[in-house]
Amino acid sequence: MEQTYKQRLRDKRLEDRIISEETAASWIKDGMTLGLSGFTRAGDAKAVPSALVEKAKEEHLKVNVYTGASLGSDIDRLMAEAGVVNKRLPFQADKTMRNEINQGDMLFVDQHLSHTAEAIRQDVLNPIDYAIVEAVSITEDGMIIPSTSVGNSSIFAEKAENVIVELNLAQSDAFESLHDIYELGAQGKRQPIPLTQVDDRIGTIGIQVDIEKIKGIVITNQPDSPSTIVPPDEETATMANHLIDFLRKEVEIGRLPENLAPLQSGIGSVANAVFHGLLDSEFTDLEVYSEVLQDAVFDLLDAGKIKFASGCSITLSEDKLEEVYWNIDRYRDQLLLRPQEISNHPEIIRRLGLISINTPLEVDIYGNVNSTHVLGTKMMNGIGGSGDFTRNSRLAIFVTKSIAKNGDISSVVPFVSHVDHTEHDVDVIVTEQGYADLRGLAPKERVPLIIENCAHPTYRDQLYAYYEDAWEKGGQTPHVLEKAFEWHTRFKETGTMKAAALQHS
Amino acid sequence: MEQTYKQRLRDKRLEDRIISEETAASWIKDGMTLGLSGFTRAGDAKAVPSALVEKAKEEHLKVNVYTGASLGSDIDRLMAEAGVVNKRLPFQADKTMRNEINQGDMLFVDQHLSHTAEAIRQDVLNPIDYAIVEAVSITEDGMIIPSTSVGNSSIFAEKAENVIVELNLAQSDAFESLHDIYELGAQGKRQPIPLTQVDDRIGTIGIQVDIEKIKGIVITNQPDSPSTIVPPDEETATMANHLIDFLRKEVEIGRLPENLAPLQSGIGSVANAVFHGLLDSEFTDLEVYSEVLQDAVFDLLDAGKIKFASGCSITLSEDKLEEVYWNIDRYRDQLLLRPQEISNHPEIIRRLGLISINTPLEVDIYGNVNSTHVLGTKMMNGIGGSGDFTRNSRLAIFVTKSIAKNGDISSVVPFVSHVDHTEHDVDVIVTEQGYADLRGLAPKERVPLIIENCAHPTYRDQLYAYYEDAWEKGGQTPHVLEKAFEWHTRFKETGTMKAAALQHS
Ligand SMILES: CC(C)(COP(=O)(O)OP(=O)(O)OC[C@H]1O[C@@H](n2cnc3c(N)ncnc32)[C@H](O)[C@@H]1OP(=O)(O)O)[C@@H](O)C(=O)NCCC(=O)NCCS
Ligand SMILES: CC(C)(COP(=O)(O)OP(=O)(O)OC[C@H]1O[C@@H](n2cnc3c(N)ncnc32)[C@H](O)[C@@H]1OP(=O)(O)O)[C@@H](O)C(=O)NCCC(=O)NCCS
Repeated sequence: MEQTYKQRLRDKRLEDRIISEETAASWIKDGMTLGLSGFTRAGDAKAVPSALVEKAKEEHLKVNVYTGASLGSDIDRLMAEAGVVNKRLPFQADKTMRNEINQGDMLFVDQHLSHTAEAIRQDVLNPIDYAIVEAVSITEDGMIIPSTSVGNSSIFAEKAENVIVELNLAQSDAFESLHDIYELGAQGKRQPIPLTQVDDRIGTIGIQVDIEKIKGIVITNQPDSPSTIVPPDEETATMANHLIDFLRKEVEIGRLPENLAPLQSGIGSVANAVFHGLLDSEFTDLEVYSEVLQDAVFDLLDAGKIKFASGCSITLSEDKLEEVYWNIDRYRDQLLLRPQEISNHPEIIRRLGLISINTPLEVDIYGNVNSTHVLGTKMMNGIGGSGDFTRNSRLAIFVTKSIAKNGDISSVVPFVSHVDHTEHDVDVIVTEQGYADLRGLAPKERVPLIIENCAHPTYRDQLYAYYEDAWEKGGQTPHVLEKAFEWHTRFKETGTMKAAALQHS
Repeated sequence: MEQTYKQRLRDKRLEDRIISEETAASWIKDGMTLGLSGFTRAGDAKAVPSALVEKAKEEHLKVNVYTGASLGSDIDRLMAEAGVVNKRLPFQADKTMRNEINQGDMLFVDQHLSHTAEAIRQDVLNPIDYAIVEAVSITEDGMIIPSTSVGNSSIFAEKAENVIVELNLAQSDAFESLHDIYELGAQGKRQPIPLTQVDDRIGTIGIQVDIEKIKGIVITNQPDSPSTIVPPDEETATMANHLIDFLRKEVEIGRLPENLAPLQSGIGSVANAVFHGLLDSEFTDLEVYSEVLQDAVFDLLDAGKIKFASGCSITLSEDKLEEVYWNIDRYRDQLLLRPQEISNHPEIIRRLGLISINTPLEVDIYGNVNSTHVLGTKMMNGIGGSGDFTRNSRLAIFVTKSIAKNGDISSVVPFVSHVDHTEHDVDVIVTEQGYADLRGLAPKERVPLIIENCAHPTYRDQLYAYYEDAWEKGGQTPHVLEKAFEWHTRFKETGTMKAAALQHS
């Protein structure tokens, strides 16, 4: 190991900065703000946050934690359990942390993933005391080479007062030259982002900081946590087929080229399954311009279906992880990882004309979407990049099962209990029932499409009943405000959204 | 007049295409789709739509009407009264049309103003049979020079099968060279928009189309309708002062330069009044990158406070209109009018780091904003550009009076009855009571700020009472869903949002 880390720490000036994670943790004081690498469980700082959790068992310690997105290695859980987090942003996806947030024991700011870097640049958030970033190597001239994600690491390192690097020997150093780090500079003084094709390289292979800021280097040896997605099932396969049908028709009528447009797909099992569906489709020469690259992207690369994939992190299941990480060379000409500000930038998303595919919790009869709040109040994960993509893509698609919790929750409701994506932003909704193409339609034209093509048959009459009442009252977007959330409150009281009359059937 | 129009119609090839508005109207058939110039009452096609309304009195005629934004010259009212519109997009602001929409007599698609051109380019909307655009001149080589707005005219003319030009002699031909027309091209094939400063000229001075498509030229002589905004009053002056206080502090702590950042201001009286407030402020060398340029922008130009203003239309009150339009030469080096796709483009808004100032109907205690739907169901005007700007600006500010309808409506409510801008997108809320800076705050941190600094004193206890009930239930964003819209339903039933206990006070 001695030798290995010497090969990876190539800047001679930094050789004497190797420290233990405990030493690093000892520098972190109550009230500080940390910027941690890590995006959807990939490339997260592992050792120092764990040591920090240990330290917090001995002394009062509360810090603000900024990340790329969710962390792996149980860090979010351990931090939540230790009560070490005052404020967390911009995204998390851990059960224990979620509970802490919803109980009011910690503060969570749910941000568009492309917005955090801008807020940091504008000095709107607390200044970052320590950036703690995982790397696979440090080059001769002190450039930090990230591992399996970029996330917000480059802006954290640039803006933080101090930087701690976790040099992780359990991550393949073949990741070197797979990153493309681009710094936008101040608003008002910046140039256009010179990216016009998915495979354009526009930046450097690593993060260059003033090496005086690198206060310590911790050598670690711990793989990323595998993703928690579940494999595609019959229902998700049906959803994928509906989506592919829709895309096929768009190609037929000449709205999309044969190889579609660069694809983005959200996090989670459903999004992965939908991408998986492309494996058996006729589509080829595909391009991906996304945030997280999940299993299906690599299956599609292996099958020769995808030409190029640009992302900001790679998050894989247990089996796939070993296979991909240690054979990453295979994908050298087909893969780039960029800062989340670039992967999710409105400028690029609009310019390239992406097809974005995300998963909501619920949608309503007018096409508004809730991605974050269970029953309107409890945080699930966060909006993530879904807003960045949905607003600016060429085709904003949402894919969800029509029901949840064994049918006691309808994913199509009269009025979503929290709005993350408005009716102005949502183009197509897909469920296992079919799809509704809402483009160019007025609210009242959308209703029958969504009910007939997307809602579960169990809930269709109930949705029509609501709409008929609402329709009587008139308006551009008819509602019976008294009853708008009745389905949600019924579920809380009775355990099902089904109306009394239907429960016996 | 004969001579005047000859000076203005400089392309010899088009001389024989002069027709009457009646002839033009006779070409328009039931079921067609029209693309009309016009943006917030400025530069609208006037004669042909009026003739069309006359024609519709004789025969069954329903057309789809796409515009830049709202039309002037009573065209929207007349079209609504004649029942001539099947589907209208992307914005309107006329009382009669609004009623038609809300009664369900016509379809209205409320779109982000930067999205319409993209939808047309993607062939997602009905193909445009006739583009009818107002011009001040046609150059020697057939380039159409728009008048007081650009709006969607360039994309309409490019994509329409046929073009009719209204050459309006009542508009100053000194507008020639004040426009900057840039066509983005297809998504996936386009280059970055080369605009990095507010005053960058990136396109041509007019709209170039295949002249075979120009089917007729109608000579008109009718000025734009003046805007309907009311002058600033004491309350709006107070609001402006709060906003200026906020901006001043941002400069003091080094977050903004002394001349701020390019400013956008929404439509309406409130937005105009707030801009007007800058007249007496210390701020100078200001830049404007906005959609509609209202009275206050020209007052600020005259006062030497604004260096440069880029917009997509000029909409002025009666007095100001004469003065500005016929002295437009005075502003030649300080003014550019661009297509709304460019004035509202996320790429530019984010790059320049705008300060956007828009007016909502209502906001809620968590910072969600309703810009469009009165009591959740009835369309007011539309989202306009407020979403384009709010999502992508450096500072997204909403300014509103804390109460409406003599205090019977609170502009701060527990849960907005329609969401146009989500909590992720809203930075600062200003009312005559003060301002709430929501940046970097979790939902629960926002509540006391919004109630204390923005809500009207009459409604504060009532808001706290709701929040306390909600807080008991927990969650990231506590709500009592059963009561979320109680204020709105109370207003409908009793004529006031005030709770019974408060009505006697
Ligand atoms: C919405 C989201 C949670 C769905 O995740 P998923 O793994 O694809 O979907 P699942 O169907 O497995 O749903 C996850 C859970 O939510 C529950 N759920 C689904 N719809 C629900 C609803 N309408 N109300 C309440 N719970 C619901 C499911 O039952 C499941 O619960 P469980 O974990 O207890 O089994 C996830 O996509 C997300 O966080 N999205 C927001 C961020 C985002 O879109 N990012 C994309 C760009 S990064
Ligand atoms: C919201 C909007 C209507 C406000 O317009 P304004 O002229 O500045 O504001 P006013 O305070 O005069 O309000 C206009 C009307 O709405 C009413 N109103 C205001 N708040 C209300 C509320 N919460 N509920 C019901 N009605 C309300 C006012 O009483 C007034 O009614 P009246 O015409 O019968 O007198 C206008 O800004 C708008 O349409 N915005 C959306 C589009 C947009 O933001 N564009 C900006 C980029 S283009």
